[in-house]
Parts: sequence; structure tokens; C-alpha cells
Amino acid sequence: MEKWMRIALEEAQSARREGEIPVGAALVYGDELICRAHNRREQDHDPTAHAEILCMREAARVLGDWRLRDCTLYVTLEPCPMCAGAMVMSQLGQCVWGAADERQGCCGSVYDLPADPSLHASTRWRGGLLAAECADLISGFFEERR
Amino acid sequence: MEKWMRIALEEAQSARREGEIPVGAALVYGDELICRAHNRREQDHDPTAHAEILCMREAARVLGDWRLRDCTLYVTLEPCPMCAGAMVMSQLGQCVWGAADERQGCCGSVYDLPADPSLHASTRWRGGLLAAECADLISGFFEERR
Repeated sequence: MEKWMRIALEEAQSARREGEIPVGAALVYGDELICRAHNRREQDHDPTAHAEILCMREAARVLGDWRLRDCTLYVTLEPCPMCAGAMVMSQLGQCVWGAADERQGCCGSVYDLPADPSLHASTRWRGGLLAAECADLISGFFEERR
Repeated sequence: MEKWMRIALEEAQSARREGEIPVGAALVYGDELICRAHNRREQDHDPTAHAEILCMREAARVLGDWRLRDCTLYVTLEPCPMCAGAMVMSQLGQCVWGAADERQGCCGSVYDLPADPSLHASTRWRGGLLAAECADLISGFFEERR
């Protein structure tokens, strides 16, 4: 749903203000927003502090279970191998992403890890929601830095 | 080196005592042990609390940089897609693992993510160090639970 991706976009804007690659995420359980987060890799010196990982960790803490089968994660950029792998390991129900990542995206672009039967994985996903807005934020960020 | 894998094995034994799937890891920078950790997924309600992720996060914190290019991670079990993906994202220098994981291993068994040129990844790895001891710990854990 667009309203959740709008929250993820707000988070991505927060990341941009903090000098981070602007990627944001929101995690929904049923019809309830459980948490929202943005990329904090540089400021936290943490290679795992992607928006998706921060959301999945926080949701599992709140729900008291590492399994996120009934959750949907909205994220502005197609997940990388680490985040796509975390969806496999948390048995995430669903992922909806915005802009494609042709370089390292592992939800359809380079690989499709979350739905890969050879990994015993079954996270449903779809891409392209508000893709232009999500992509513009990222390309704007890199243009500023050039 | 065997001595680092022995530390990872000690960590795996700690995980077993805590009722966690017994996987342990140690992270080395040059010739110095930076940190050691074991799987804490159940007790932390955290799908990302694998031994490898805990080590990579802690090492990046200690070194003040999310890039772990000069580091070697020793882990008793072949890394899953999430942990293998985290090696890509942290640009980890090297990984040495013990027992193979035919089901979800992504350092050679199902996929080879850390060294995959299509992901622009270049972590070197080798598997099978003290493999029997590493595998026995895990199979013993699951036999006890039957």
C-alpha cells in the first residue's frame, strides 16, 4: 500500500539529511505499523545497519519472535544480498520495494533470494511501488556528492 | 588457522549451553582477535543474531569503520544467505568456515555469494577447517532435541 511506502520515503529523507545513502523502510504487522527505520551505516559504523535490517530486528523485538511470517516490509530500494538473506532467515511474509537496484539487488535483479526454493525460502515480494520517487532520492543524493 | 577456529568452537559450545543452535565465530584483524560471538537468535528474539553478524557488527564498531577488508572471520558453520550477504556488504577480506551447510549454505554449497562477481563481491573463503568437530556439535544438538 502506498501509505506505508510514503512512510518509508520519509525515512529515506531522514537518511539523506544525515548524510547516509537515502533508503528507508517501514514494517507492518496486519494493518499496524510496527516500526520504521533508515540507513545508518556511516554514523553507526555498522555494515548491517541498513533500513531493512533495523526494521526486522526491531519488529522481532517488539513481537517477541524472530519469525516475521505475518509481516510486510516496505523499503524504498530493492534489498541487497544481506537484507534479502535476512528475509529468508526471518521467514518474512512479504516485501514491497520501490526502486530496482541493478547492481546488487537480490529481490529480482541479480538474484531472487527471498523466494528461492533452493534456499527453502518463501517470502513473497513485488517491486516498483513509487519507484520514480524512491529512485530520484538516491540519484539526487549521488549527484550532490559528485 | 586452527587456533582461531578453536575459539569459534568454544563459542559454539556456549551457544549449545544456552539452548541455541551451536554456531560460533571469531573475527581476526591481522594477527589480533577483535571479537568472538555465538548464535543468540532465540534468547534475543533477533533473526539477525547469528554468530557471524554479531562479530561483524562488533568488529566494525571497534575498528570505527563498516569496511572489514583486512579482517578474517572464522565460523563453525558455512554462512547462510544473510551472513554471506553481510560479508559482501562489509567487504570482508576473508572467511574460513568449518562444517558445510547443504541446506542454506551460501559460501559454496547452495550459492557462492561472498565471491560472486555479479554482486561485485570479492571476499575470499575456504571451508572445511575442523569440519568434523564443528559438524558433530550441531548434529549432537539436534539429536538431543529429538
